[in-house]
Amino acid sequence: MDTMRWENGTLVLLDQTKLPGRVEYIYCRDHETVAEAIRSLRVRGAPAIGAAAAYGLVLGVLASGAKSREQLLARAREVADVLASTRPTAVNLTWALNRLLARLEASPVADPEELTELLINEAHTIYREDLEGNKRIGQFGQELVPRGARILTHCNAGALATAGYGTALGVIRAAHEAGKQVSVYAGETRPLLQGARLTTWELLQDNIPVTLITDNMAAYLMARGMVDLVVVGADRIAANGDVANKIGTYGLAVLAKEHGLPFYVAAPLSTVDLSLASGKDIPIEEREPEEVTHLAGVPVAPAGVKVWNPAFDVTPARLVTAIITDRGVARPPYAESLPRLCSSVAKPENSIYFI
Amino acid sequence: MDTMRWENGTLVLLDQTKLPGRVEYIYCRDHETVAEAIRSLRVRGAPAIGAAAAYGLVLGVLASGAKSREQLLARAREVADVLASTRPTAVNLTWALNRLLARLEASPVADPEELTELLINEAHTIYREDLEGNKRIGQFGQELVPRGARILTHCNAGALATAGYGTALGVIRAAHEAGKQVSVYAGETRPLLQGARLTTWELLQDNIPVTLITDNMAAYLMARGMVDLVVVGADRIAANGDVANKIGTYGLAVLAKEHGLPFYVAAPLSTVDLSLASGKDIPIEEREPEEVTHLAGVPVAPAGVKVWNPAFDVTPARLVTAIITDRGVARPPYAESLPRLCSSVAKPENSIYFI
Repeated sequence: MDTMRWENGTLVLLDQTKLPGRVEYIYCRDHETVAEAIRSLRVRGAPAIGAAAAYGLVLGVLASGAKSREQLLARAREVADVLASTRPTAVNLTWALNRLLARLEASPVADPEELTELLINEAHTIYREDLEGNKRIGQFGQELVPRGARILTHCNAGALATAGYGTALGVIRAAHEAGKQVSVYAGETRPLLQGARLTTWELLQDNIPVTLITDNMAAYLMARGMVDLVVVGADRIAANGDVANKIGTYGLAVLAKEHGLPFYVAAPLSTVDLSLASGKDIPIEEREPEEVTHLAGVPVAPAGVKVWNPAFDVTPARLVTAIITDRGVARPPYAESLPRLCSSVAKPENSIYFI
Repeated sequence: MDTMRWENGTLVLLDQTKLPGRVEYIYCRDHETVAEAIRSLRVRGAPAIGAAAAYGLVLGVLASGAKSREQLLARAREVADVLASTRPTAVNLTWALNRLLARLEASPVADPEELTELLINEAHTIYREDLEGNKRIGQFGQELVPRGARILTHCNAGALATAGYGTALGVIRAAHEAGKQVSVYAGETRPLLQGARLTTWELLQDNIPVTLITDNMAAYLMARGMVDLVVVGADRIAANGDVANKIGTYGLAVLAKEHGLPFYVAAPLSTVDLSLASGKDIPIEEREPEEVTHLAGVPVAPAGVKVWNPAFDVTPARLVTAIITDRGVARPPYAESLPRLCSSVAKPENSIYFI
């Protein structure tokens, strides 16, 4: 089951809003369809929307019929703006788009067809790097997981949220594959139930023991001594280690501290935004009231009630035990460890990744 | 809108599982219907199920056609057992049933009809006391609420959870009536959404400003400085002040401490169980997986996924700023303040309440 795949000029996206009831694909032949899919959370998860946006940019350029390098660049910037405006919090979205634009701008090639080919290859590279990076996150992370650990996770930071394998679920998968006999508690993750719908679905397919809870059961789960550690993904990590992730993450971090449990964040370095000094600068998306007031189309609250619906929250670095990246495990103080890891990633012009 | 009313030998219960979509009543003419209504949460909230069970006991005795005092007492004990077995956590249920049985046993009356009349009056007294008690909870509690306070509450501890006016919502109502211009954040309270369905509905009817959030947004709400205090109800309070209440309450208490916010519990003294030394002795009901896996009949998780579904949790006394009762505000140490308040309530044989 692929989260996305590229088929002869079409981006095929698994429609995650239909899971687990139905497995349906969307065939995206233009960037508007990709933008709509990101906005509607048909594809979601920071690394996955980064990769999808990259392919979306390719689709926008392919459709433009640009006759010159200048036309193609102008079109690429225009399409990137549309895609970048879909969701504000995950930095991987703009990271991927900027990487494609930089690749174009840095290339001396004049021929539009060659430039398009170069874009396609870069999108493939982003996709492949994410998959490979998640495997490394899994390896680095599983070393932190004790045998028999009972792990609480939130939302879906799995194969569905990435090019594959997952970040937080990558750590869990790697621990499982290492024979550590881990088990998982999945918080359902209101309002859109990514934990209930997607995380349990992924783990059941891999035969990793999973128990579903509502988000408000996590505290009591910890108090009863039923969980050993927490691992979550991230949508953006500031230079000081503050972490924006799905709403509810911050509460789990406070609770983990109260109960003396390690709280791990698993994310590729593409999620780290060194341009932001702290989490207070991360834009937090607020979404429509209907996500809270309706479930499966059925109203569950009085009509017209006021709703506050932030899609993410910010967990301060002091509550994060470690950040597990595709380049190794960052420990506090993150203001030192994160830039060090980021600088270990070679730059486009001389990286093994960017050829 | 009455949560329940007694009409010529029939207990008329508002079916709260249908709210806010539909206002429907159940006409209970036997105790089995009452037991089913309690079990299925058609009537819920500790004080409300206490009062409903009292009327249920009356219905069981009315239907028995007992010919003697002995027959009537035997029947009453049998019916009380059925009603007491419906839900384990709220102590008000057994408190109300025991009070009716004690009333019977203490009476020298031999005539079954007279005894039945006495039972009906005692059930009315429980109902009326709860309503009056909640008004006093409101008065005591509103003194703790600053002008303009933004109040977070959980589940529904309102008129619907009681004979009327509410406990936690009683405090909010009294503060509103005192012109304090309070506003409320209602946590939706998964799995059964009593906050979304019932609390917002009650507050909208009273024109008290209310904003709905999912439970996992509470932490971020506090971090953003958007809330000033938390007030919740209780299903059972142990002698040391540990509080069993709707699942999610304990997490809110931890979060309130982390953010330096007062955490108040509002409940009548009938919720205090001095026979239990601490919260670890309170039985915690675990309910069916379908409450978590299905919403409005629609599956939101893969079929067969394992679920943990405790209906309540226990908040340790150290996290509770004060317990607002119908006899005054208990402050720590609760092992002293709670027994003092309870002993201020006159015993059945000489109470103004038990005549």
